[in-house]
Amino acid sequence: MSVLPKALLKLIEELGSLPGVGPRTAERYAYHLLRSDKHVADRLSNAISNLHSGVALCPKTFALIDASEELSPLYTSSDRNKKLVAVVEDPLDVVALERTNQFKGTYHVLGGVISPIDGIGPEQLHIQELLQRIGDDAVQEVILAMNASVEGESTALFLQKQFEEQGISVRVSRLARGLPMGVDLEYADQITLSHALEGRQTL
Amino acid sequence: MSVLPKALLKLIEELGSLPGVGPRTAERYAYHLLRSDKHVADRLSNAISNLHSGVALCPKTFALIDASEELSPLYTSSDRNKKLVAVVEDPLDVVALERTNQFKGTYHVLGGVISPIDGIGPEQLHIQELLQRIGDDAVQEVILAMNASVEGESTALFLQKQFEEQGISVRVSRLARGLPMGVDLEYADQITLSHALEGRQTL
Repeated sequence: MSVLPKALLKLIEELGSLPGVGPRTAERYAYHLLRSDKHVADRLSNAISNLHSGVALCPKTFALIDASEELSPLYTSSDRNKKLVAVVEDPLDVVALERTNQFKGTYHVLGGVISPIDGIGPEQLHIQELLQRIGDDAVQEVILAMNASVEGESTALFLQKQFEEQGISVRVSRLARGLPMGVDLEYADQITLSHALEGRQTL
Repeated sequence: MSVLPKALLKLIEELGSLPGVGPRTAERYAYHLLRSDKHVADRLSNAISNLHSGVALCPKTFALIDASEELSPLYTSSDRNKKLVAVVEDPLDVVALERTNQFKGTYHVLGGVISPIDGIGPEQLHIQELLQRIGDDAVQEVILAMNASVEGESTALFLQKQFEEQGISVRVSRLARGLPMGVDLEYADQITLSHALEGRQTL
């Protein structure tokens, strides 16, 4: 004898596939949708079913674009400097960098990082397209803006090697490592603090 | 210039209406759905759009039931003792009590608690139907299983008064108050500890 209606159980099960959502959270979401107006549930349902058809990948930068667009507006806009390229792992990293309002270059989304343990090698990433683009657009500087993880670092090293091996002369930089804003020195981890020391700046 | 595709922004906005979901979590959910197979998104979308049509309220107990059922199986089943009624606030409280595998009575869902600050008075709750049911089913014991909150307590008091005023003679009990399992005495709050002292049991 099931305690909850099948339609609710089904929804709880499906919501449980979202990242970090356990059975209790899924129950809470499902019950919230049940209690709210049917329009709220319908709007969410439509937004989900329109997602895949409404989103495409920019064939040049591999950023997410509207399916109706051909290229990312962050690439085609005349405001953006095509000679400066920030290489990021995921499409959402573009959003994070755009939030700073500081970067006026263009992006290149790798689509992940090299991670043998997950079976991801260089050939699965958009590295070939990056090399191509550096030539096509006469790129002057590549900012390696990968996550500050072991995989991020080794992907950055791999890219640097590729540039050298293929004789691509381009300035390569990476995001600064150091203390994040608002952190107490005594709580900073060892590696962060080592980076902050190494990269210390003259005042 | 929008950084993310419209379809993705729309989904992030809709997901943000779920309880406790902020912009970052909504982004993570949306991006997860975008990366997973279209079937995963379709299943979730369908589960949400089928929710309201698949779920109904039992007209007797106000528990959630399949739209195809007439009464809650937890009420109609011959295994359940109709003379023992647990009164709960929300439909999901039924699930919590069923999980104990200890309760063999039936349920009555109030649909909330009396809370003047939220504009919820006794007339918005299924209290009249409870009184009716106590007579119809010759109920012998009512367990007031509201949440251990101020509103839960005052709703329990209100119900007790109603029984008295209307001359309904029924045994009224409530869930025990005391230390939850696994809690250190030194971390238990004052009120919980007072309840545990008051309700101490002879060994």
